[in-house]
Amino acid sequence: MQPVMTGDEVMSLLDNVFPQIHEDGRVYQIASISSGEAVVRFTANQRHLRPGGTVSGPSMMALADLAAYVVILGHIGPQALAVTTNLNINFLNKPGPGAMLATCRILKMGKRLIVVDCAIESKGQDGLVAHATATYSVPPK
Amino acid sequence: MQPVMTGDEVMSLLDNVFPQIHEDGRVYQIASISSGEAVVRFTANQRHLRPGGTVSGPSMMALADLAAYVVILGHIGPQALAVTTNLNINFLNKPGPGAMLATCRILKMGKRLIVVDCAIESKGQDGLVAHATATYSVPPK
Amino acid sequence: MQPVMTGDEVMSLLDNVFPQIHEDGRVYQIASISSGEAVVRFTANQRHLRPGGTVSGPSMMALADLAAYVVILGHIGPQALAVTTNLNINFLNKPGPGAMLATCRILKMGKRLIVVDCAIESKGQDGLVAHATATYSVPPK
Amino acid sequence: MQPVMTGDEVMSLLDNVFPQIHEDGRVYQIASISSGEAVVRFTANQRHLRPGGTVSGPSMMALADLAAYVVILGHIGPQALAVTTNLNINFLNKPGPGAMLATCRILKMGKRLIVVDCAIESKGQDGLVAHATATYSVPPK
Repeated sequence: MQPVMTGDEVMSLLDNVFPQIHEDGRVYQIASISSGEAVVRFTANQRHLRPGGTVSGPSMMALADLAAYVVILGHIGPQALAVTTNLNINFLNKPGPGAMLATCRILKMGKRLIVVDCAIESKGQDGLVAHATATYSVPPK
Repeated sequence: MQPVMTGDEVMSLLDNVFPQIHEDGRVYQIASISSGEAVVRFTANQRHLRPGGTVSGPSMMALADLAAYVVILGHIGPQALAVTTNLNINFLNKPGPGAMLATCRILKMGKRLIVVDCAIESKGQDGLVAHATATYSVPPK
Repeated sequence: MQPVMTGDEVMSLLDNVFPQIHEDGRVYQIASISSGEAVVRFTANQRHLRPGGTVSGPSMMALADLAAYVVILGHIGPQALAVTTNLNINFLNKPGPGAMLATCRILKMGKRLIVVDCAIESKGQDGLVAHATATYSVPPK
Repeated sequence: MQPVMTGDEVMSLLDNVFPQIHEDGRVYQIASISSGEAVVRFTANQRHLRPGGTVSGPSMMALADLAAYVVILGHIGPQALAVTTNLNINFLNKPGPGAMLATCRILKMGKRLIVVDCAIESKGQDGLVAHATATYSVPPK
């Protein structure tokens, strides 16, 4: 499964269709898009933190959802209309305040449904901090 | 199952322990806490919207997570340490930009795990816009 | 949302298309199909039990999946081709060996995806023993 | 994370505590238990098949649940009391009637909760046929 857009191309598309993701500054960066996979880097700022300096659950859900969207766009092209239909997330270990990496892999690339697996790590921490699976629905052409 | 805190008491607690939820203004209000249930109202502002005037998926995930926390705090008391371990959400219908109501019910009140069901409606729209189940882990006393 | 098949009609259809569900005897019965809802009764036999006389997790997953299929068939008609795409289940309380009731409600009746909520009780036991949500995909006509 | 039981030892344990898994013949075999991972092989027989020669959804859910239990027992030792609290499964591609391999990896090995990822393949078929995540609760010692 080969990507059809680069990380820069996907980010340009997001800049146009979802400028809201940058409302807190450019906290998301696309580290790479490769065969069936994408890596998105997230740098939490004050509003994503919780007491004790941990990143909030909703920030990780938003990250998983965005990284899933990135790997999908990277492989189907600029189809901004793909929508999340299901997201399941397990919170595994309390993350520190540092940068996070979400690695998303396509598990199924169907004509109507795309299923993605998303592993989230926190820089300098062993093991995963969260793991999600997400399903996106793609409109018929 | 009777609540042990009122909506106002839970909101005061959140004001102290999670002031971040108000960073976009007071978009969350606790409409009610009753036997095994809580209703949280969410008024989206510009940053929660997506093209076409729909509320973003991550905003609904954050709402489900918060409303689950509200019903749990309302029934176990000021135990700020309860943490989400799993959240599963189905996005059902595209919401309009209006206010949302999340109605959360406790499905299981265990000593260690609490499981909650969350139905999200959008004002003036038939049917649900999203449905979530969430599990919180409660630290041993 | 009105049903288009009765419980007896759905059971006849299942007898034809899924005779395997009766391999352990007629353990499943359709108690009712009404507006947006179906109730399926399951009587565990020896092979569904686990040490301590509890019904196995896979038996409850199979029950949730079947009851979801029943409520869907009851509302879309004899479309045997609907297939499960996602099932999420929380096991809430250890069930006793008695009969179980699965009550499934349609949360979303889409043209392509149908989402169902399923609450499982065990006769003579307070509260739910399990809660599931399932998504079925319906082939385009 | 090193295993503390071999596949043969786990199977002997299952033979004692869950003889029911062999009611249809010895359809499950433990292919391997290695660092943080276990592979379980499942050979469907007539009762697991559906029209068209595909393996039923409940059979795959039962396989994911069992393989998760195998990887957990293999790493925590003969603690027969671990119980599933949540299982989420995505059905990805219709499997053929052949043997299946479930590869389960431990995502989090907590004192109270263990989270496992399970990829299911069907022999001779590209890609996964299903993907599950499961959470088991381990009783306090």
